[in-house]
Amino acid sequence: MKRYMLVVAYDGTNYCGWQVQPGRATIEGELNKALSGLLGQEIEVIGASRTDSGVHSLGNVAVFDAETRIPGEKFKYALNQRLPEDIRVQESRETSRDFHPRRCSSRKTYEYRICSRETELPTERLYAHFTYRTLDIQRMQRAAAYVVGEHDFKSFCSAGSQVRETVRTVYSLIVEQEESLIKIRITGSGFLYNMVRIIAGTLMEVGMGAREPEEMESIIAACDRSFAGPTAPARGLRLIKIQYTG
Amino acid sequence: MKRYMLVVAYDGTNYCGWQVQPGRATIEGELNKALSGLLGQEIEVIGASRTDSGVHSLGNVAVFDAETRIPGEKFKYALNQRLPEDIRVQESRETSRDFHPRRCSSRKTYEYRICSRETELPTERLYAHFTYRTLDIQRMQRAAAYVVGEHDFKSFCSAGSQVRETVRTVYSLIVEQEESLIKIRITGSGFLYNMVRIIAGTLMEVGMGAREPEEMESIIAACDRSFAGPTAPARGLRLIKIQYTG
Repeated sequence: MKRYMLVVAYDGTNYCGWQVQPGRATIEGELNKALSGLLGQEIEVIGASRTDSGVHSLGNVAVFDAETRIPGEKFKYALNQRLPEDIRVQESRETSRDFHPRRCSSRKTYEYRICSRETELPTERLYAHFTYRTLDIQRMQRAAAYVVGEHDFKSFCSAGSQVRETVRTVYSLIVEQEESLIKIRITGSGFLYNMVRIIAGTLMEVGMGAREPEEMESIIAACDRSFAGPTAPARGLRLIKIQYTG
Repeated sequence: MKRYMLVVAYDGTNYCGWQVQPGRATIEGELNKALSGLLGQEIEVIGASRTDSGVHSLGNVAVFDAETRIPGEKFKYALNQRLPEDIRVQESRETSRDFHPRRCSSRKTYEYRICSRETELPTERLYAHFTYRTLDIQRMQRAAAYVVGEHDFKSFCSAGSQVRETVRTVYSLIVEQEESLIKIRITGSGFLYNMVRIIAGTLMEVGMGAREPEEMESIIAACDRSFAGPTAPARGLRLIKIQYTG
């Protein structure tokens, strides 16, 4: 039995997220189906990030175990022929038997995209959150600086989450603008449930003047979800990459 | 009777192009339907650029005539409530009765996007032409320089076209790269049928080494479609803007 690793990009628009759900199209479900069909045996992948419905990815990571003579590098081509066109394996290779994509330590990078202009842009509608509000990028950048570092991010964790340990490290948080597109790029040691979307929602409130950049400090200190802004919509979020550091 | 102008953005993926065709979804058809429903009378728009199936737009222009007391600026909001989410009017206003979006002189800007990497990126699949070939941008830039200026562009006109006058002026042609995305941006006095897509297809051949940049000069001089490269696929093309200069 060998363990194989996949780097998976997808357009999340037509899926109910990563995780298998009976009777619904999911990324994990499509990967399991393609792998099981290819190998003639029941295969179940383990994913690194269980992205929500509508969230996109350039590089989620998954592993699976199989008894096969197919070289690790070849899975990419064989799977892409079986997968729908909105899921594409970017890389495949054999990995060590004890590599676990969620338990091994990593740095994850996400990007949240906001389209801020008077009228929606149809070609961006599935890949950015639209707002007709004008956002002050410099205010957002000042607020972003408070987020960087090791903090208890309980204020930025959706109420439904079961996780007990809520301290995480954010290595960088960059806000930049390219015409009407604002990109929030965040790299961290891991993220709580909806953490990036709540940070994006809070930064948007700062950008539109509803909050002061300096409030970010007390929002973090409160360790209470009700102090932060709303959870920004899923379509604006994309997982950029996962780097294993262990 | 007054004449109104619309600036229209759309995601061309789900349409059979701009022009009305019986029994098929088209941008023009959707605009006619929304306007006729709004005004309670049969309205037919006249479009500036009859984009092909799958081609996108940030700013195509259309006009229509109507007897109404709705202020020109309000059409935008009223139409966007009736239009599908992949078509959005960016701007609306009253214009002069003799303004014709195809007959009045203008500068049009198109962008052709190429995604050049080992494996397709699902989030770009509908908005860029994918190639696994590596393209040399500097070669493409050298070839692009020959296209700028006033030329007979017959070599870059699809055989089906009825147009007699094939001299056009290209004001600028910029090739730039951002990670795996290559953008070809061209501004001209007007374009022949498929001209931008044939220029893009020819530049791609130069980029992959199948032709020399200097060949561009003799391709133009030949005034023969068979000398140029293939017509690049529609999904990579987007109309950026139309500026009326008259």
